[in-house]
Amino acid sequence: MSMMILMEKVVEKNSIVVVGIDPVIDRFPEYIKDGFDSSYGKLMAFGKEIIDGVYDVVPAVKFQIAYFESYGLDGMRAFKDLIAYAKEKKLYVIADVKRGDIGSTAEAYARAYFSKGSDFEVDCITINPYLGDDNNNAFYNLAKENDKGVFVLVKTSNNTSGQLQDLKSDNQEIYKYVANNIKENKFYETDHIYSNIGAVVGATYPKQLSEIREMLPQSVFLIPGYGAQGGKAEDIKGAFDSNGLGAVVNSSRGIIYSYEKFGLSISKSSRKAAVEMRDDINQWRL
Amino acid sequence: MSMMILMEKVVEKNSIVVVGIDPVIDRFPEYIKDGFDSSYGKLMAFGKEIIDGVYDVVPAVKFQIAYFESYGLDGMRAFKDLIAYAKEKKLYVIADVKRGDIGSTAEAYARAYFSKGSDFEVDCITINPYLGDDNNNAFYNLAKENDKGVFVLVKTSNNTSGQLQDLKSDNQEIYKYVANNIKENKFYETDHIYSNIGAVVGATYPKQLSEIREMLPQSVFLIPGYGAQGGKAEDIKGAFDSNGLGAVVNSSRGIIYSYEKFGLSISKSSRKAAVEMRDDINQWRL
Repeated sequence: MSMMILMEKVVEKNSIVVVGIDPVIDRFPEYIKDGFDSSYGKLMAFGKEIIDGVYDVVPAVKFQIAYFESYGLDGMRAFKDLIAYAKEKKLYVIADVKRGDIGSTAEAYARAYFSKGSDFEVDCITINPYLGDDNNNAFYNLAKENDKGVFVLVKTSNNTSGQLQDLKSDNQEIYKYVANNIKENKFYETDHIYSNIGAVVGATYPKQLSEIREMLPQSVFLIPGYGAQGGKAEDIKGAFDSNGLGAVVNSSRGIIYSYEKFGLSISKSSRKAAVEMRDDINQWRL
Repeated sequence: MSMMILMEKVVEKNSIVVVGIDPVIDRFPEYIKDGFDSSYGKLMAFGKEIIDGVYDVVPAVKFQIAYFESYGLDGMRAFKDLIAYAKEKKLYVIADVKRGDIGSTAEAYARAYFSKGSDFEVDCITINPYLGDDNNNAFYNLAKENDKGVFVLVKTSNNTSGQLQDLKSDNQEIYKYVANNIKENKFYETDHIYSNIGAVVGATYPKQLSEIREMLPQSVFLIPGYGAQGGKAEDIKGAFDSNGLGAVVNSSRGIIYSYEKFGLSISKSSRKAAVEMRDDINQWRL
């Protein structure tokens, strides 16, 4: 049901925008940098302002854990408390962790993000498929037990994603092997419209988006790369199904640092950027 | 110099054993489970006993961060404090994090583990190459600045590692593309015997160990899969160079839970298991 809940929130808000929270304190406005002694205080103030600004116009937020890890324990404490704050605001919460390891270790990661009541419990995470099904199944299994979602990296948005992902074996690219592997997995099956196994496919690769859409009709796509990374609304149209659903689109820097452009408060700027992005994509989606 | 320091410690201790600290509280002895209220207390007590037992007979410890993340903030606090404890004991400290992301995000991860004075600063980490050089270079770059080491996942030890890693493109396996990509990277160059870019290659794949050894003569190998995962000492011999150096071998469960087998204290059992493993491998290495 996890991905169904995400799609229900998309319908309710009429928005596929995921606000990516990638906090870099050096880029915060002075009143936050000066207003708190600890990194924890700064990260919480910034994150809460963003969530306050967007929670009623977007279905989901995505916390990029790297930015929290980079502030050590203070960062991890903010990660935990901002997850809780986003849940209070009824947002679907994605942790972008891209974990991948041998089976027993993957299970430990899965417990971290999926176990009921754990500090870092979220609705959904991203995983890296390089280690194969030992890894993937550990996440799928605990996702099923706890009704959580998983987005598998299939074709990532960055410039060098093709170095391995586009290599062809028997005339088929590696990213298609990853997609096929999802499709053939027993955990892909669902009684609902959408499987709890989704896929990450970059907005920067429109052709691949359409191809993978055909291969994985029941997967929700998490699409990074819109905005700061160069992906445009038109590039994403191939990701949606005939109902204009089946995908959510992330923007991080383009939303959370929009106060630099708009000169409004963080809350108001983030809201304005999220609404503009919603409208920009809805014209291609609906 | 980071990998040179690791090799110096190997020579000094005459051991290539890396003790993998993968703590699962359910498997701790009763006196630790009952002796501390918090997960933090239990994790610290267990970790310190292991380090006390092995620090003078092994060159390095490897913390698998998944097991710490699985205990939330308590776990992350123990991760930080056990890193500090291992450094006090002059051990080379590896954080097995297998991170991989787009460039800007990879840089945030690199700051977390490489920045001087950060909570989670270690000597060396593992990274996942699925996103290509955007990712890899962010880590290599900060590793160079801070004189740290990186182990890139090339051929992992688990059963399903071949699903993607063994696919052949133009008659060459994906894991060899990863190895080639390391070799051709400008950060691979070194004025020393060993590059600061190393490779993870599983003990469970002896043929590939020898192949990759030839491809990457200046990379130190981090070899998981010995012991609990089935890799034997003889399987590893192809990983060493003519001086018996150039590789370290990890064992986690086989050492840290050896008290279940030996019936000694955690410190004494871990030491005994680490010494037996050292001698087992030294007969093939030297």
